[in-house]
Amino acid sequence: MRLSRYFLPILKETPKEAEIVSHRLMLRAGMIRQQSAGIYSWLPLGFRVLRKIERIVEEEQARAGAIQLLMPTIQSADLWRESGRYDAYGKEMLRITDRHERDMLFGPTNEEMITDIFRGYVRSYKDLPLNLYHIQWKFRDETRPRFGIMRGREFLMKDAYSFDLDQAKAVEAYNRMFVAYLRTYKRMGLTAIPMRAETGPIGGDLSHEFIVLAETGESAVYCHADYLSKATPGEEVDFDADLRPIVDDWTSHYAATEDVVDKAEFEAAVPEDKRIVARGIEVGQTFYFGTKYSEPMGAKVATADGTEVPVHMGSYGIGVSRLLGALIEASHDENGIIWHKSVAPFHVGLINLKPGDELTDKTSEDLYARLEAAGIEVLYDDTDTRAGSKFATMDLIGLPYQVVAGPRGLKDGLLEVKDRATGEKEMLSPEAALNKLTAALTD
Amino acid sequence: MRLSRYFLPILKETPKEAEIVSHRLMLRAGMIRQQSAGIYSWLPLGFRVLRKIERIVEEEQARAGAIQLLMPTIQSADLWRESGRYDAYGKEMLRITDRHERDMLFGPTNEEMITDIFRGYVRSYKDLPLNLYHIQWKFRDETRPRFGIMRGREFLMKDAYSFDLDQAKAVEAYNRMFVAYLRTYKRMGLTAIPMRAETGPIGGDLSHEFIVLAETGESAVYCHADYLSKATPGEEVDFDADLRPIVDDWTSHYAATEDVVDKAEFEAAVPEDKRIVARGIEVGQTFYFGTKYSEPMGAKVATADGTEVPVHMGSYGIGVSRLLGALIEASHDENGIIWHKSVAPFHVGLINLKPGDELTDKTSEDLYARLEAAGIEVLYDDTDTRAGSKFATMDLIGLPYQVVAGPRGLKDGLLEVKDRATGEKEMLSPEAALNKLTAALTD
Repeated sequence: MRLSRYFLPILKETPKEAEIVSHRLMLRAGMIRQQSAGIYSWLPLGFRVLRKIERIVEEEQARAGAIQLLMPTIQSADLWRESGRYDAYGKEMLRITDRHERDMLFGPTNEEMITDIFRGYVRSYKDLPLNLYHIQWKFRDETRPRFGIMRGREFLMKDAYSFDLDQAKAVEAYNRMFVAYLRTYKRMGLTAIPMRAETGPIGGDLSHEFIVLAETGESAVYCHADYLSKATPGEEVDFDADLRPIVDDWTSHYAATEDVVDKAEFEAAVPEDKRIVARGIEVGQTFYFGTKYSEPMGAKVATADGTEVPVHMGSYGIGVSRLLGALIEASHDENGIIWHKSVAPFHVGLINLKPGDELTDKTSEDLYARLEAAGIEVLYDDTDTRAGSKFATMDLIGLPYQVVAGPRGLKDGLLEVKDRATGEKEMLSPEAALNKLTAALTD
Repeated sequence: MRLSRYFLPILKETPKEAEIVSHRLMLRAGMIRQQSAGIYSWLPLGFRVLRKIERIVEEEQARAGAIQLLMPTIQSADLWRESGRYDAYGKEMLRITDRHERDMLFGPTNEEMITDIFRGYVRSYKDLPLNLYHIQWKFRDETRPRFGIMRGREFLMKDAYSFDLDQAKAVEAYNRMFVAYLRTYKRMGLTAIPMRAETGPIGGDLSHEFIVLAETGESAVYCHADYLSKATPGEEVDFDADLRPIVDDWTSHYAATEDVVDKAEFEAAVPEDKRIVARGIEVGQTFYFGTKYSEPMGAKVATADGTEVPVHMGSYGIGVSRLLGALIEASHDENGIIWHKSVAPFHVGLINLKPGDELTDKTSEDLYARLEAAGIEVLYDDTDTRAGSKFATMDLIGLPYQVVAGPRGLKDGLLEVKDRATGEKEMLSPEAALNKLTAALTD
């Protein structure tokens, strides 16, 4: 993408309403624009990251056997009356009356609707296990939305729902999502620690919050240091096999948020030199809640002996838009964002230091074309902005690599290649730069 | 995808509420489920088609230089008060009051918001031309939603907005979208004819509706038969060049919907043997509306001589979810849907006629793996349903090719390969089937 044709509205000033670094950086880097309290437009750069996060989530959901569909944003209140949550949900639910005076709502979550879909079609235990998920915009009318997209009102969430014949099978489904979550976050360069969780308004018996450590996290967390070096299951993990050993391993040490922590238990369980007391950001949650919805809503299947039983369900959320904030909170420096290559909006920022200079133009254009042909996404700064501003913008938006083409280096046939994360710079020929970037950025 | 692990709830009965064939077929094929009047869940098979349509739209928008972002569904009423449309829009607008008693709405379109984004950042003619688009769920509270997703309340739309310094440049932007639209529909196997259009509530001076001919179309259309054989611009079309010759060619003959047709003019312009009077489905619309929004909302840029002028805008919609219905209306037979390969939910339906039979299983599994490895998407029916039902389901869901593996053919080492569109069947070795399908389905 040529910057001269792109829409990247960089802000010079730090917006004073932004309380946390991810919010500041997303505004400054032209990734989001607030449209109303807690409601944002995703500008082109932000949208690209959102899309990449979605793709990783989708790939790992598919790997774990979950099937994607898409439920609408607007739901009927009647569905929520069946579960009893219409009255219970409170003011966070955005309630709507349509032109025919029917009570509707903007879905804050989809347990009721997916249960309705299930009961509409599935009759037999033979159709189980089933895990259906979607990635859709949700709305929670927070009284005080803040921290940018970290705690917005309209937010993008992946929510999966598992249906199984009994509790034992439901726990197997739970374990599949648990392992998928470990892999999902790891692929984005994050270590998310599964912590004991309160089950909250959704209710349930077995639940984990997946927490990313970050100084600016919303809550205090208490966990064992070994979580930070634990191996994440690789691509070869077999989701048809028993995943309990992995789940057991990842829940073998103490890890709890401040809501549920028992400090005495923490200190008894974790040797002093292994105790981590830090701040954390929740990026996902897994629940097993049994027949909480299937019972009142009549989502039943026939068993092998012909009797009808309500299905055992779980739900599994990932805050897709929130993850973007968490990624920035966990990876930035004083100059801007540092994206992991898996979610970077572009892989390489190519800076033409002197548009109009024949050799610089030719070398830049040629490298741009060859990188793109190699499947590398390039943001090519072909504008006539001054050099200092170009460097600052590239540092701010945090693409993994920067390549600088200027007349001085090119006299010796060399470009500068900078690794955004380490700051290391190398002078390389265009050929060597292409090889280095291809090796670093493609699989 | 193995059917035994998929969620494909085929309906045996034709739902009686469905008035048109696309609605009937989508319900029967387990593609959608109605959740409320005019509000649908997209079940896995329907979701896959929706996603493929989106991808084609995105690719052609990018080719034409439009840049993707994403605006939220919920908008502030104040923005619409600026343009004067909040009061003008009527009951089709879903109006919402949030917990702080602020007037909000579920966006039916985004002219106001995109104008707000533009004025928030762009100051100079040097940043033009600019075309920003998104694909987002919209809501129009139709008093009588019907025809399934063809006229739903919550629907997915691609809307692009162009910003230019003056009318001449704006027409160039218009032409780029016009050509992108021709290509977009053609890639899905549709011929969409650009017809003179009323500019409707959005207002404007220059506008075309893109209409697909189908017996069940919502309105009568009058056009010249040569449109049906006109060449569509290929991939090599240069969007930096003057596209007027293409637009002129595609608007050179008479074509108008019943809303604007002048029958005397139609008969004078089109020789009798070239007159088509048919039914049509609108699948997109292009507008140039000048400074209608930029003027009241203060979206101005500085010109080269330093004066400030309101930008000239256009908007360009494609009904992404509605296209799915149009595709089915335009391509089906008495047995079900016939998908074009570019939008088919899967490319091949592989039927194992006798699961448990060693040779049939082995051949099917092997072909399944090899087709998938070749990048061909396969729905592999590995269930123990009876053969007749398997065939009927495959015809109903309309994948471009069916491959049938059964003990009888395999005695001679042969599979049956059926072309869904033509009904032609061939007995081929697995190797020959693989070659044929790879050649037919990959580029």
